[in-house]
Amino acid sequence: MTARTVRGARAVGRRPGSPDTRGSIVAAAREEFAVHGFAQTSLRSVARSAGVDPALVHHYFAGKDELFLAALDIPFSPKDELRAALDVPHEQLGETIIRFVLRIWDDPTRQPGLLAVLRSSATTEHATALLRDGLVDALMAEVSAAAGLTDPETRIPFVISQTIGLIFARYVLRLEPLTSMPPDQVAAHVGPTLQRYLFD
Amino acid sequence: MTARTVRGARAVGRRPGSPDTRGSIVAAAREEFAVHGFAQTSLRSVARSAGVDPALVHHYFAGKDELFLAALDIPFSPKDELRAALDVPHEQLGETIIRFVLRIWDDPTRQPGLLAVLRSSATTEHATALLRDGLVDALMAEVSAAAGLTDPETRIPFVISQTIGLIFARYVLRLEPLTSMPPDQVAAHVGPTLQRYLFD
Repeated sequence: MTARTVRGARAVGRRPGSPDTRGSIVAAAREEFAVHGFAQTSLRSVARSAGVDPALVHHYFAGKDELFLAALDIPFSPKDELRAALDVPHEQLGETIIRFVLRIWDDPTRQPGLLAVLRSSATTEHATALLRDGLVDALMAEVSAAAGLTDPETRIPFVISQTIGLIFARYVLRLEPLTSMPPDQVAAHVGPTLQRYLFD
Repeated sequence: MTARTVRGARAVGRRPGSPDTRGSIVAAAREEFAVHGFAQTSLRSVARSAGVDPALVHHYFAGKDELFLAALDIPFSPKDELRAALDVPHEQLGETIIRFVLRIWDDPTRQPGLLAVLRSSATTEHATALLRDGLVDALMAEVSAAAGLTDPETRIPFVISQTIGLIFARYVLRLEPLTSMPPDQVAAHVGPTLQRYLFD
């Protein structure tokens, strides 16, 4: 857990401290996780793929978990972005969540990392736990707050089930017409489902 | 555990001709796909795991695709079972589909094979296509017929998105309270969603 302080201190400027070094390690990790899944990815293979010394990966990340979380971080680290997006009247919340999710997933710079997370979570118990805890924490907190829920733990899992199923169908199975459908149209179809899970 | 006893029965029959030989190959394939995914599984590794000569696997299956489809077949090969289950009034169809899916997935003899399919589909483009085509074909045909749909291609993908998301949340992410919730209660929550996608 010293890595967190190390991470904060990274920008000091000596060779290993280049801000791009950490970024290139995370980018390489995303691709490794995407192609090989969590279990088959090692700090060593990420280092090789990033073209850096393995010691440098250890310098930034205490272990594979932490590296995975850095890759996982993409969708939710901008919590402010999510919170701002959800600042709408309650009756628009369902559609708004779907539009937010599709905007993030349709973004070509984010999609590979997100797919990596989803794929790893499908194949590795450990990655599953990381995703579940990360995903639930993030969604729970932001969506519950936006919806003013008093019983989020019984409602949010259903929201997640529809949202993750939509993601799986659109981006993994690539089921038509879902994959080519404009986000607003998808949101119009699926939004009411979330609305019902949240408020009915 | 029952699957293992069934598989154990393979030893009884004559070598190539026994109907149990094919069954034991399929059972071994399911386990190989479950543990290693589509890409990492070969006819050779399945043969080894089934304790048969690789030539025998080739005798029953033209290739890995066909073997995978045999493993994939579990939920839908009993098409009559699905058709019978869906023989209910239209207004009960949503809940009935969910109850059917959960009954299949909760079955400990079927769950490993189904998880294998889902995991492979999440990680391998090729397995994804097989699942999509198998899944869509099966669901399209049976659910459309049961619902008397005239526009199944725009409705069924949404049904699939919620159904697969529920499966992912309950069996892969193991999100509580979804994972421990009795099937009827899950169906009561999620059924209306399918109902809306099918008929609204």
